[in-house]
Amino acid sequence: MILLIPGPVTTRPETRAAAAHDYAPWDLDFRTLVATLAERLRDIAGGQPGKHVALPLPGCGHFAIEAAIRTLVPAGDRLLLPMTGDYASRIARLARESGRAVHELEVAPNQPADPTAIEAALRNHPTIRYIATVYSETSTGIVHPVPAIAAIAHSLGRRLIVDAVSAFGALPLDLSAAPAIDLVAFTANKCLEGLPGAAFVVARTAALEAARGQAASWSLDFAELHDHYQRSPGSPRFTPPAGTLAALATALDFYQAEGGQPARLARYAANRDALCDGIRALGLAPILPRAVQGPIVVNVAAPDHPAWNLQRFVDLLKHRGFLISNFKNTLEPSFRVGCIGAIEPTDIRRATEAMGEALAELGIATRQAA
Amino acid sequence: MILLIPGPVTTRPETRAAAAHDYAPWDLDFRTLVATLAERLRDIAGGQPGKHVALPLPGCGHFAIEAAIRTLVPAGDRLLLPMTGDYASRIARLARESGRAVHELEVAPNQPADPTAIEAALRNHPTIRYIATVYSETSTGIVHPVPAIAAIAHSLGRRLIVDAVSAFGALPLDLSAAPAIDLVAFTANKCLEGLPGAAFVVARTAALEAARGQAASWSLDFAELHDHYQRSPGSPRFTPPAGTLAALATALDFYQAEGGQPARLARYAANRDALCDGIRALGLAPILPRAVQGPIVVNVAAPDHPAWNLQRFVDLLKHRGFLISNFKNTLEPSFRVGCIGAIEPTDIRRATEAMGEALAELGIATRQAA
Repeated sequence: MILLIPGPVTTRPETRAAAAHDYAPWDLDFRTLVATLAERLRDIAGGQPGKHVALPLPGCGHFAIEAAIRTLVPAGDRLLLPMTGDYASRIARLARESGRAVHELEVAPNQPADPTAIEAALRNHPTIRYIATVYSETSTGIVHPVPAIAAIAHSLGRRLIVDAVSAFGALPLDLSAAPAIDLVAFTANKCLEGLPGAAFVVARTAALEAARGQAASWSLDFAELHDHYQRSPGSPRFTPPAGTLAALATALDFYQAEGGQPARLARYAANRDALCDGIRALGLAPILPRAVQGPIVVNVAAPDHPAWNLQRFVDLLKHRGFLISNFKNTLEPSFRVGCIGAIEPTDIRRATEAMGEALAELGIATRQAA
Repeated sequence: MILLIPGPVTTRPETRAAAAHDYAPWDLDFRTLVATLAERLRDIAGGQPGKHVALPLPGCGHFAIEAAIRTLVPAGDRLLLPMTGDYASRIARLARESGRAVHELEVAPNQPADPTAIEAALRNHPTIRYIATVYSETSTGIVHPVPAIAAIAHSLGRRLIVDAVSAFGALPLDLSAAPAIDLVAFTANKCLEGLPGAAFVVARTAALEAARGQAASWSLDFAELHDHYQRSPGSPRFTPPAGTLAALATALDFYQAEGGQPARLARYAANRDALCDGIRALGLAPILPRAVQGPIVVNVAAPDHPAWNLQRFVDLLKHRGFLISNFKNTLEPSFRVGCIGAIEPTDIRRATEAMGEALAELGIATRQAA
């Protein structure tokens, strides 16, 4: 079964096999695995030893986002948030329920966030210290200009939290070249091609050390977690998702063997191109114009046909070995297909063939069939 | 490798194998798996359909405890907490950092919490609505009298939160017979013999429904999570630890085939007895008197010998295929050994043989060797 949902992703068999062991998290060998994993993730983020630190958090990306906001943004402070789609809306909710205020910045539909609009908002609101932004919006497929936003934040003395959950490892990121980024949050189970169950951040140590005591949650406090790991490298506070961590170490071996971020981005871009070509050949089209279509996920406009039924289409694809999401994030009828995971353009071409068969079985004529 | 740390535990190969797949969490088959898992966990807790609900939370037991307190105890309210050991101290910290006050009730060292002392404290503090208590304290090995505490709470109109992380599935629990228990928290990776990465609660639906809007955290709000699952059975809010959930479904098949809670408790008690017999044969002794030694974990007094070195002892045991914790929770020098997991008294006897060999290699004469 190929997962194109687009996350959790299809993983390599070696990655899954690494999860299928009983690990003792406080054992010295496992502590070394975790400490080494943290160093590798820091390096992938372009972090520097001493200046940046990677921290694992049991759970999911949303927990890491809430913990990032709790840790860095004092209660009652206001966060600037470009409203890029559903995942930005979720950041707003995580922040507000944690007692942080949100200044929502409208973003034009089907466009990347505009750095000049962010600059204007920051100039108009001098008390706003933090911006949070989504790097790749799963609900649209658009990649937002994190480096440009970070440059503006830096020029105005503001700080940036990056939700890179569906971007980390594939989209470029260099914390050493972006001093305004205090924290980037991500998970094991997207572009790093690991399993679900663990979230991570790479953060500036100075930002964490200045943020002690703000989180109002022991579970979701990266400042405390950093202090803990400083005292006990690799030794978890609480029981970690040990199999997921071990599997990620294996997944990172493949990541590095492939050639790291540029190679991964190139493969995903090739997957995206194969997908767009394949669906166009079926007479369908992505919702986004090609210029803003990112390499992570493609929303495809559903056929304008009375026989269209998303769940039935999903079932027919599943029967052929491909799983896509059985819900949509767009206003218009659509289906979304992931380009990420341990898959190649040949897998995508088989998937678009299967889509053609599924549409035919629904009674929807495609260009090829017609 | 046999894990006696005592959690995460040794699991069955079939359980681990179930984790080594790529799962699509929003797929209808996986939603059914999660919804069925929740029903099975509710039933193990003695919960009733409609009246009780099981909810999965990504992460670890501490997250579930914090979420339980946030959900049920209004900010600023005071919680009565029998201070049974390290895990009770952790509940106190989770509560306080979440903005809840804690009334600490001293518990005699190496004794179960005294229900009459809890009754007196509740009578003296009529505004305290919630008690939180640890069922099996990993730091001591003592099982605390949850049914008696629940009966007192019920008679005084108070409510109980049970930390059953290291007890659930092995120690008796019948929510239908304990109406004062609003919530019991546990994980997959202790007595249920699943993998780490997922926490759970079984809670009274009426208590959750009366607690909407109190958590001040979207991530850690069981009232919201309950409402979510009511709308979308089995459909996670956020990416779940899918492999851990699937593995737990397999682990529960073995749990039920074994005979459920009574059979599991009997096997763990037999493990505990084999362990106590084996260490006594080595001239060592548990720290606790037999009358209060629970079936989950045994703290063994370290040999009173200058050559004793816990990490070296742990390394020598690991070399022989047995992993115990490389830290201690007792004031006096000790090592702790778990009795739980997919292991039998024969495994424990091999472990105590290995302990004898390890002590000999440390240069510490045992009774058998002498």
